[in-house]
Amino acid sequence: MMTPRGRLLGLGVGPGDPELITVKALRLLREAPVVGYFVAKGKRGNAFGIIEAHLQAEQTLLPLVYPVTTEALPAPLSYEQVISDFYDEASVQVAEHLDAGRDVAVICEGDPFFYGSYMYLHDRLAQRYEAEVIPGVCSMLGGASVLGAPLVYRNQSLSVLSGVLPAEELKRRLADADAAVIMKLGRNFPKVREVLAELGLDSRALYVERATMANQKIVPLAEVDPLSSPYFSLIIVPGEKWQG
Amino acid sequence: MMTPRGRLLGLGVGPGDPELITVKALRLLREAPVVGYFVAKGKRGNAFGIIEAHLQAEQTLLPLVYPVTTEALPAPLSYEQVISDFYDEASVQVAEHLDAGRDVAVICEGDPFFYGSYMYLHDRLAQRYEAEVIPGVCSMLGGASVLGAPLVYRNQSLSVLSGVLPAEELKRRLADADAAVIMKLGRNFPKVREVLAELGLDSRALYVERATMANQKIVPLAEVDPLSSPYFSLIIVPGEKWQG
Repeated sequence: MMTPRGRLLGLGVGPGDPELITVKALRLLREAPVVGYFVAKGKRGNAFGIIEAHLQAEQTLLPLVYPVTTEALPAPLSYEQVISDFYDEASVQVAEHLDAGRDVAVICEGDPFFYGSYMYLHDRLAQRYEAEVIPGVCSMLGGASVLGAPLVYRNQSLSVLSGVLPAEELKRRLADADAAVIMKLGRNFPKVREVLAELGLDSRALYVERATMANQKIVPLAEVDPLSSPYFSLIIVPGEKWQG
Repeated sequence: MMTPRGRLLGLGVGPGDPELITVKALRLLREAPVVGYFVAKGKRGNAFGIIEAHLQAEQTLLPLVYPVTTEALPAPLSYEQVISDFYDEASVQVAEHLDAGRDVAVICEGDPFFYGSYMYLHDRLAQRYEAEVIPGVCSMLGGASVLGAPLVYRNQSLSVLSGVLPAEELKRRLADADAAVIMKLGRNFPKVREVLAELGLDSRALYVERATMANQKIVPLAEVDPLSSPYFSLIIVPGEKWQG
């Protein structure tokens, strides 16, 4: 008789505050024999930090350690190839547990399907294994909540943009947005702030670092030190208030 | 000596599955002496249904009953005026509890700052009273999870659009989006499906009604009965897979 295969679970654990995990993700996390998480070499990982207090001694930890920390690699290395190989290997590691009948819960900061690395495991494994995704509170909504900024009113359109985009594309998309969130700032911050100023949106824009985390920092946009803006910072341009 | 004022709490209770509430929202809900919720006349309310099992006998319920169920009102009534007056009155009702020193938790389906009616109370009261917003899992991420559809990869832009938008604007915004979510379908469904077909996006688009709720329904877009599409349905056009 064959061992029934394990299930792949993508668990959103929320934006940072450990209490912002859902009841469902917490239950499935506690039930999972194997807990997988993506992490940079030598780091503990944000998602891991969020759920660490809930782990039990009998659970197997499966850290999936990124081989690189930057997309700018010396030739002949290509980021796309290196990272694709890494996700292939990570999928093999996860699949070994699934084949042995063990469920694997992969924890994801924010939401698994909203810019999460879990997506690359899902795309590789969900055809072959039962997979379930538990949505989470995403970072932009964590950010809006701590900024006290209603994000979108009524029939307004929301544009979620990456700070990595070229200035011209950012400008075009921001000019057309009723409300916007710009993620992945880090070293893209100076470019983004300049584009906002060119559009006259800098007075409406709000900035937060590590929203809902213990080391959260809210700074007026004009006062942000562009050299210190972390990757986990974001800018929100809330929709114009509708009196309703 | 003055009674200390109560706090206004906007609690996101998630997209529908009662287990998709966060640990924090659940704790604050249980601690709140007064629980407010928006509801249509004669209905129980989606948010109320999500948290009903957690209510205790000693909690005061404060239903805030919408005076209208449609934006199309006979002259000389104007929807904007009627709804604005309603939010004014609802704010007065909430403020009476706050002034008496009682915290009021206003429950919101999804996230309070993501198209939530709570925003109109917040805009009226947060200057005068201490207000805290607990973010929640929004409907579009609930939808993506049950559709098994990773929403946005890497540096893709996401456009969140209302089905109420005119066809031309929908078309223009969808044509420019890497990934999109279209909310508020209902009777806007036929228009939206036609626009998607004109753009050749209908084969990529996914449809779900009442995602994560007990009566959730996933139907291929082509098979949706346009007369039966509820307001709480949405269409997702996921970003093109990035192999990563």
